[in-house]
Amino acid sequence: MVDNEDKRTQLPQSFSLDDFVYERLLSNNANRKVIFVLGRCFNLPAIVILEKIAFTEEQFSGTDDKSTILKNSSLEKIMENDIYQNNFCRVDSDLNKLKATIIYPATEKHISKYTEQKIYVLKETPELYKSVTLPCLEKEQFNCDWVYNILEHRQEVDRIVIEDLSPDVGFMLLPDLKWDGVTDETMYVTAIIMNRSIKSIRDLRESHLPLLENIKSKCLAAIKDKYGVNSNEVRAYFHYQPSYYHLHVHFNYLKYDAPGIFCDKAHLLDTVIDNIKMVPNYYEKATLSFTVRENDKLYDAYKSIAEE
Amino acid sequence: MVDNEDKRTQLPQSFSLDDFVYERLLSNNANRKVIFVLGRCFNLPAIVILEKIAFTEEQFSGTDDKSTILKNSSLEKIMENDIYQNNFCRVDSDLNKLKATIIYPATEKHISKYTEQKIYVLKETPELYKSVTLPCLEKEQFNCDWVYNILEHRQEVDRIVIEDLSPDVGFMLLPDLKWDGVTDETMYVTAIIMNRSIKSIRDLRESHLPLLENIKSKCLAAIKDKYGVNSNEVRAYFHYQPSYYHLHVHFNYLKYDAPGIFCDKAHLLDTVIDNIKMVPNYYEKATLSFTVRENDKLYDAYKSIAEE
Repeated sequence: MVDNEDKRTQLPQSFSLDDFVYERLLSNNANRKVIFVLGRCFNLPAIVILEKIAFTEEQFSGTDDKSTILKNSSLEKIMENDIYQNNFCRVDSDLNKLKATIIYPATEKHISKYTEQKIYVLKETPELYKSVTLPCLEKEQFNCDWVYNILEHRQEVDRIVIEDLSPDVGFMLLPDLKWDGVTDETMYVTAIIMNRSIKSIRDLRESHLPLLENIKSKCLAAIKDKYGVNSNEVRAYFHYQPSYYHLHVHFNYLKYDAPGIFCDKAHLLDTVIDNIKMVPNYYEKATLSFTVRENDKLYDAYKSIAEE
Repeated sequence: MVDNEDKRTQLPQSFSLDDFVYERLLSNNANRKVIFVLGRCFNLPAIVILEKIAFTEEQFSGTDDKSTILKNSSLEKIMENDIYQNNFCRVDSDLNKLKATIIYPATEKHISKYTEQKIYVLKETPELYKSVTLPCLEKEQFNCDWVYNILEHRQEVDRIVIEDLSPDVGFMLLPDLKWDGVTDETMYVTAIIMNRSIKSIRDLRESHLPLLENIKSKCLAAIKDKYGVNSNEVRAYFHYQPSYYHLHVHFNYLKYDAPGIFCDKAHLLDTVIDNIKMVPNYYEKATLSFTVRENDKLYDAYKSIAEE
């Protein structure tokens, strides 16, 4: 019995952060106000990601006194100079929650993913994709079971924004794990395709244009419908390299500086479509730049090539 | 007396946010978790800037139970799937303060400075470039005299990192105005080409490959030489639309999240070179996406087309 409890692989319903034993800081993003810490729960590794949540207009404009920050906080002066005054502000904790993501049990790959590291840019020719990238990702890739759980309606069914079950052009659109699901300002949803044979944009060919066009038109319409965000205010893109090798499209609010939207990682859906229209096998022929971190297996693989 | 109190130009010692009467939201940065709101205090305009504060390692590693977030918070589950669990987390307010800056009295300039503009993404076909973008930028473009001052050695001569005076493939490399010039972590230099006839990547053709290759190899070597940053740690890219229409290349440290490196604005130098190698007139034929702000003349120009 004790043994079972010691090796539990799911968090109990009553889980609290009190059960998390701190080991070390993995990284701390002071700009986005998010911290990644490693520890243990019930004798297995766990990662806690805490992120401060963005403000909402309603926290100021609300007519209900209990819901506004202005009526439920106290100031503690730091300095003042002329017309500028700086303070600490203590706020009712209901109006100032955090988002806490817990990964349990966490693997070495998760630990490496969230640990601060050097970043390098690599240039992947079609030949290097076949000889280095593909073998490496086939060996190392993250388990996609959680994706299949979604696609087979075993998990997150109530979170589906829209779905198209066609095996060729179908997809499911869901709030991204990185989004709290309610703050409009940080709207972030992801379309996961039904087809399990497309790993990344590298595999995209002319025959996939109907899939891409279908995702684009239906997801933008659903985002307009559900979140009231017009299509000219949405950023739609792929990651290369992606964090998991089952093709998916990221959609977020243009004015939100989401993580992973830099030019060395994100490829606009529109550009991908237009590239394939211009050159049907663009992604078979292109040299794609991408960034890796020094702990990534892919960096090791490319480094050993360079040293040969 | 009442009059004096009504028009006081300093906040009282006992000032609290309760004295601030909300008028409207100026802007809300959901990435940095900072909000700018306009209101009135004692009948004069005031701006309140609230910002969530970054986490510190001590809030997790601390030995004093009262000082750690882990011992002073409660979770409220949002969703779970496999090994991932998302929660809201309510924290003791002493461990989760905000920074509150108050500007009082606030002027029109402050209000304008902190007011957010909407951002839109536009798709520029080759036809729209010729019929809308080009006429608009020819009419509205900023004066490039400061660029010519540099190219003719009238200004900033002592700031030149490297130069190649060839009229066809030449350029000057200088620290970017946005860089302080000393902090390695934020290294940011810009190569301005000698040729005055190339406005942006839209104008690039096969004949410009020697120019692009020359800039790439010489600038990366100079950056390694002068700043000790290896070429695989440099992000080299163009902006589209650029802020001035004389072709230039941005170079910065890969790990620095410089402004303007998002996928809807930045085009990697390597990708541009490779696109032209694959399709010599790629930038003559491509549909290019870019973002505009609602006060931009270019947005007006596109809006009036859409309304026709």
